[in-house]
Amino acid sequence: MTKIINFSESRRQTDDALSDLLTLFGDELQQVEQVIVDHMKSAADLIPTITEHLIGAGGKRLRPLLTLSAARMAGYKGHDHIIMAAAVEYMHTATLLHDDVVDDSDMRRSQPTARNLWGNQASVLVGDFLLGQAFRMMVAAKSLPALDILSSAAAVIAEGEVMQLAAMNNAQVSEDSYLDIIDAKTAALFAAAAEVGGVIADAETAERKALAAYGRNLGIAFQLIDDALDYGSVNRVLGKNIGEDLAEGKVTLPVILAYHRGDIAARAFWEKVVTKPSNDPAHLEQALKLIAETDALNDTVERARHYGDKAKDAIALFAADDVQKTLIRLVDFCIARAY
Amino acid sequence: MTKIINFSESRRQTDDALSDLLTLFGDELQQVEQVIVDHMKSAADLIPTITEHLIGAGGKRLRPLLTLSAARMAGYKGHDHIIMAAAVEYMHTATLLHDDVVDDSDMRRSQPTARNLWGNQASVLVGDFLLGQAFRMMVAAKSLPALDILSSAAAVIAEGEVMQLAAMNNAQVSEDSYLDIIDAKTAALFAAAAEVGGVIADAETAERKALAAYGRNLGIAFQLIDDALDYGSVNRVLGKNIGEDLAEGKVTLPVILAYHRGDIAARAFWEKVVTKPSNDPAHLEQALKLIAETDALNDTVERARHYGDKAKDAIALFAADDVQKTLIRLVDFCIARAY
Repeated sequence: MTKIINFSESRRQTDDALSDLLTLFGDELQQVEQVIVDHMKSAADLIPTITEHLIGAGGKRLRPLLTLSAARMAGYKGHDHIIMAAAVEYMHTATLLHDDVVDDSDMRRSQPTARNLWGNQASVLVGDFLLGQAFRMMVAAKSLPALDILSSAAAVIAEGEVMQLAAMNNAQVSEDSYLDIIDAKTAALFAAAAEVGGVIADAETAERKALAAYGRNLGIAFQLIDDALDYGSVNRVLGKNIGEDLAEGKVTLPVILAYHRGDIAARAFWEKVVTKPSNDPAHLEQALKLIAETDALNDTVERARHYGDKAKDAIALFAADDVQKTLIRLVDFCIARAY
Repeated sequence: MTKIINFSESRRQTDDALSDLLTLFGDELQQVEQVIVDHMKSAADLIPTITEHLIGAGGKRLRPLLTLSAARMAGYKGHDHIIMAAAVEYMHTATLLHDDVVDDSDMRRSQPTARNLWGNQASVLVGDFLLGQAFRMMVAAKSLPALDILSSAAAVIAEGEVMQLAAMNNAQVSEDSYLDIIDAKTAALFAAAAEVGGVIADAETAERKALAAYGRNLGIAFQLIDDALDYGSVNRVLGKNIGEDLAEGKVTLPVILAYHRGDIAARAFWEKVVTKPSNDPAHLEQALKLIAETDALNDTVERARHYGDKAKDAIALFAADDVQKTLIRLVDFCIARAY
């Protein structure tokens, strides 16, 4: 039923760091895919159907690649990083299913969302199943310290989502509050994914911390770019799905910067569109104009670059081998999405 | 903010096995309450508010009591059963939050549900937080075998809920399918709650299996009685909230028995009300009439009694001390709710 992604086919289609990681970890990622497929089996047919829809549809496998990369950099020789990487992807997929319900999203990765096709009820429950399976897989890897990191991340991610919910429709959210939210909802899993790779390799504390710091800062940069892209790329080649955050009343850094740098009229505009969000194209047009005038998009990308630099510096203590060099290039790759 | 339940006050208000368990484990349960309160703290205010609403409102603490009882029967002398029992209650609360979203429920335990007060989004996310915290607490108890049991239960519970969703609005669900569903969605956590008490006590396999069997069979009996009560008690003293399952198109054993024992007209009626559920009082009246005619309620309770007997026999291998004797009476107490 599930097609295991043929990584050798998709290798090197583009000259980017993510493709290079796929090459470096092709065989291991193939094993991760097999573990993923094995754990979506269930007597309840909807479970493999929905899981397949999300996981089978692809996605970048960025988080499991962090686990595999970290394990290799820390010199791990065993096999438990495979199941751990699969567990990380399950956790991520569970949060996607629930996020789509919370955000009322109809499309993800250019496909209808699970809630769109099978309803909110099934999305909530299959998300719960995936989270349960993720823990089951982590337990199979038999590392209490890794379990500690990942279970803490699960709670923190949900905490971040609740904080985001509470900050909805509020134009006055501060940059610091926003950073706390994306640190929790996005960067915590990046950090955990990288750190557990080091943990199962019995890496020293300094190395573990370096891996976690890489993941965390990459995660923040990644989310900042994602939020910037929702208002189009810096080069003004607008994507298809811009303006979704605005239409939901979700306040992200481009809006926060434009709000704080704006005059009274601009602030009144932001208050209005954030408090009573709509799909009105005139609102989006005005928002883009104010964001451009205040250089908010460029500066969001600059902030991302700052965290990206921290990520690169964090792993400077590892030997500059292929994996380490590719992870450093991965930071630039994530930021380059904004152009 | 959270009032720790004063168990000494509520002790022995009724002469039942549950009250006796509260007496036997008063001190330990007080510690469980403290752990519960400590773990609902969060920078996101909605988290303690919603958790407090559900956990603080009481509930029977049946599942943590199973963990505490099992640990004591297995001769456990440590302290990890406390955090494990709290984790079990967190898991249970997480499923309640998500169930209410899935069922569109507005009331639970005679109070408005969290989704009714704070919306579906917050209920989904706070449920996720509680599940994450539950795993964090289990990890703190440092038992990989216990973690294995509880993480498997988490996946199985969600699986049961998905199976129940797939069986909605289908009057032809078989008794066996229904039993599979309640085994997964309800009995799996009862079984896990009891088994982990034995596991952290390093109980022998026979004892572990006995505890799991007690929990599982008690859980099935408990759910059967719950489903019977939705059509009123055997003595026809009807509760306030009867007919909710019918109004949702949820097919439980009373309906399954009445359907299979009914004539063509009765089956046509069940097909109609289950396929197109409504709050029509005439439907409920007719349903109660058909259930009474086919003795479906009495026989649902008889089925519960069967599983209750299995539960009692399972723990016959433990010494007949206060705890063991109270657990045996607890089975009758659960079934007696039907009268």
